[in-house]
Amino acid sequence: MKKLKPYYAVIFTSTHTENTKGYSEMASQMEGLAKQQQGFLGIESARETVGITVSYWENLDAIKTWKANTEHLLAQQKGREQWYNWYKVKICKVEREYEFKHD
Amino acid sequence: MKKLKPYYAVIFTSTHTENTKGYSEMASQMEGLAKQQQGFLGIESARETVGITVSYWENLDAIKTWKANTEHLLAQQKGREQWYNWYKVKICKVEREYEFKHD
Repeated sequence: MKKLKPYYAVIFTSTHTENTKGYSEMASQMEGLAKQQQGFLGIESARETVGITVSYWENLDAIKTWKANTEHLLAQQKGREQWYNWYKVKICKVEREYEFKHD
Repeated sequence: MKKLKPYYAVIFTSTHTENTKGYSEMASQMEGLAKQQQGFLGIESARETVGITVSYWENLDAIKTWKANTEHLLAQQKGREQWYNWYKVKICKVEREYEFKHD
């Protein structure tokens, strides 16, 4: 297992309400906006029973700045009012990683 | 944002080959086995284009022990030989978290 310069992961897990009107558009808009932020490293998403989005950041300040972004704040509010039954956010320091690629 | 006793997350992201025969059975078998391990705290999974499984553990030793579990080693080998085109494992320390529940 390779030692690496630590970076940060935000694990966002959520379940939806029945009213997901407008959600996909907003999600892709926010993903686009996140990618423009200073310190953004990457994002991965999948949804089945639960939705999991993991975004990666250079440091905690970048995460804090993104959380406080005006457009993102509006999206968060809309999410709490309409789209999400539940969500949980975990701020994590990535300490080690390893990768496999098939031949 | 609540300060908490740190715990660990293993973020496992992967893409499948076309040959996923036997994968679901093995995945649910491994999930059952993981739940029996010392230090196991929880697991969440979703797959669309990419599969994301996040498992949570009390400490790094628990993660190391689970990685070296004999049945799990066989599953990992089978995964590399047959099911996965690519995977990446990230070992993370969860430093902060917060939660939302709809009324």
